[in-house]
Amino acid sequence: MTQTLTIRRPDDWHLHLRDGDMLRAVLPHSAGHFARAIIMPNLVPPVVTGADAAAYRDRIRAALPEGSAFTPLMTLYLTENTDAGDVAQAYADGLIHAVKLYPAGATTNSASGVTDFSRVSHVLEKMAEIGLPLCTHGEVTDTAVDIFDREAAFIDRVLDPIRTAHPDLRVVMEHITTSDAVDYVLASDRNLAATITTHHLVINRNHILAGGIRPHYYCLPVAKRESHRLALRRAATGGDPRFFLGTDSAPHTDANKLLPCGCAGCFTAPNTLSILAEVFEQEDALDRLEGFTSLHGPAFYGLPVNEETLTLVRETPDFPAHIDTPDGPVTVFDPAMPLHWTA
Amino acid sequence: MTQTLTIRRPDDWHLHLRDGDMLRAVLPHSAGHFARAIIMPNLVPPVVTGADAAAYRDRIRAALPEGSAFTPLMTLYLTENTDAGDVAQAYADGLIHAVKLYPAGATTNSASGVTDFSRVSHVLEKMAEIGLPLCTHGEVTDTAVDIFDREAAFIDRVLDPIRTAHPDLRVVMEHITTSDAVDYVLASDRNLAATITTHHLVINRNHILAGGIRPHYYCLPVAKRESHRLALRRAATGGDPRFFLGTDSAPHTDANKLLPCGCAGCFTAPNTLSILAEVFEQEDALDRLEGFTSLHGPAFYGLPVNEETLTLVRETPDFPAHIDTPDGPVTVFDPAMPLHWTA
Repeated sequence: MTQTLTIRRPDDWHLHLRDGDMLRAVLPHSAGHFARAIIMPNLVPPVVTGADAAAYRDRIRAALPEGSAFTPLMTLYLTENTDAGDVAQAYADGLIHAVKLYPAGATTNSASGVTDFSRVSHVLEKMAEIGLPLCTHGEVTDTAVDIFDREAAFIDRVLDPIRTAHPDLRVVMEHITTSDAVDYVLASDRNLAATITTHHLVINRNHILAGGIRPHYYCLPVAKRESHRLALRRAATGGDPRFFLGTDSAPHTDANKLLPCGCAGCFTAPNTLSILAEVFEQEDALDRLEGFTSLHGPAFYGLPVNEETLTLVRETPDFPAHIDTPDGPVTVFDPAMPLHWTA
Repeated sequence: MTQTLTIRRPDDWHLHLRDGDMLRAVLPHSAGHFARAIIMPNLVPPVVTGADAAAYRDRIRAALPEGSAFTPLMTLYLTENTDAGDVAQAYADGLIHAVKLYPAGATTNSASGVTDFSRVSHVLEKMAEIGLPLCTHGEVTDTAVDIFDREAAFIDRVLDPIRTAHPDLRVVMEHITTSDAVDYVLASDRNLAATITTHHLVINRNHILAGGIRPHYYCLPVAKRESHRLALRRAATGGDPRFFLGTDSAPHTDANKLLPCGCAGCFTAPNTLSILAEVFEQEDALDRLEGFTSLHGPAFYGLPVNEETLTLVRETPDFPAHIDTPDGPVTVFDPAMPLHWTA
């Protein structure tokens, strides 16, 4: 039985770090395991311009533990007022690595997102021209659409039209949750990839709603039925380079989770690698873990793979139920299964 | 435009009153509008014997506001140790009006429920013989079954076999949430009815999960997708006597709702009639409200209709967001729409 597993140092291709006290509290949990991360721009106010991204990058760097080599890969929040020239300059400067599309109102701090997609087509055209990826929160916000159908509807109504209009645009479907999304990626011939979170490989919607309501398992896109979880596991562990890790680790204090209208997000930064090793071992695919965490992402983003390594050891990990922050405790995602690997 | 609506005093064919301080706090909200209610037996410990039911009935009577004519219709909690003779005697004494079947683990305080249905067949046979209705919490508890499929699976795996084995057994499918259940009732030729809650006529699962997680909308069976809600509205407002009101009003303190694993239940006793009038008016079926609230239930249970009346007035009702109880505040169900009728 394998006792240690050494892989190139992982990257997290979808991460929420927040700002201020929360940034300082959660950053060490990602920086301890990951070399780089695509940093979500949905602050309040959002990270919209190159100048915003440079300032946020500097705040992240300032919050890093001493000696950390963690590199934040910055993104911009696409709004209907986004300046294509500013985007192109930020990319040319090596400052940003993606632009994030949030349908207005789709998730935490998305009020500045896009309502009329035709208003951003000139930005998408510029991004296609220069090779800058678009990351999508793939849910329609039409309240008439069932919450569990919103990802599939987004593919049909928004994503496929965008990709047809901009065939050279490189797109990352973020935190996919359905077999529909997996199939859409598999059917593409180029310029399309998808990130998969840790928690969507572990939970289905029963974890949220059966025998009690569990806000700590609630994220957006919400976990779907078991058949979708199994499709995600096949995609993540199958070795296809179009699928790679984006944890979507998203800290909210317990006070903000356990509300009459609780916030969406699972905080997986501390135990993601232990959980992933468990999942990949369950699927008899430990040899493919490195591809998912460390190889496929850089290949899509056109970045070098990390030279440093990380070694997982077969030891029962010991994670706290929550981390303390100045804003209050943040519950660490509970995988609801024994873990056997320590990163 | 109709300004007042006078109907025979309603009955609630599915109600949770709890015990002790909570009983005293919530009972006036039902007793103020309803003449009778089928009282759920899922206390801790459950109401299992005729003696338990008599004692609980007496506690409810003692908790009634002075001068109230409210009549609790008692039920027994079916366990694998239930004594058929005790059940028959309690029914003969006029003490109980139904026996409740909870699959073990299906909902709040259901741990004493039935795991092996063959162990209760002698009780069901006796009930069929004497005409005592069985009320069912219609969800399988097989964790492999998706939470949204559990009612349909219960019909196939449990209810239909029970009804085939005991064709004379009178059954009430409680708090139905799916078009599958509506269709099953409609396809029956006898001995089958269903209750429908107030909240399931108002919310679908988007209310629980879209744009934030809302524990106060969480109940079991959980609300399903919109097409099911519409099927329930057609059933409730269509005049078919096999469908009648069972609010399933279920008080939990906010502290017990807003937990990492929050309790299931919506507290609708204070505003149920205002909400129902709104729903029936939206469906252009105000003339059928009385059937749903006051006629169909007594007909199925073989009880006289109430002679007293209740008059609804077209006035904006004023409900508190929560009621205070010695155990803490209990949030009143928010219908998320303007109401125009006061009961």
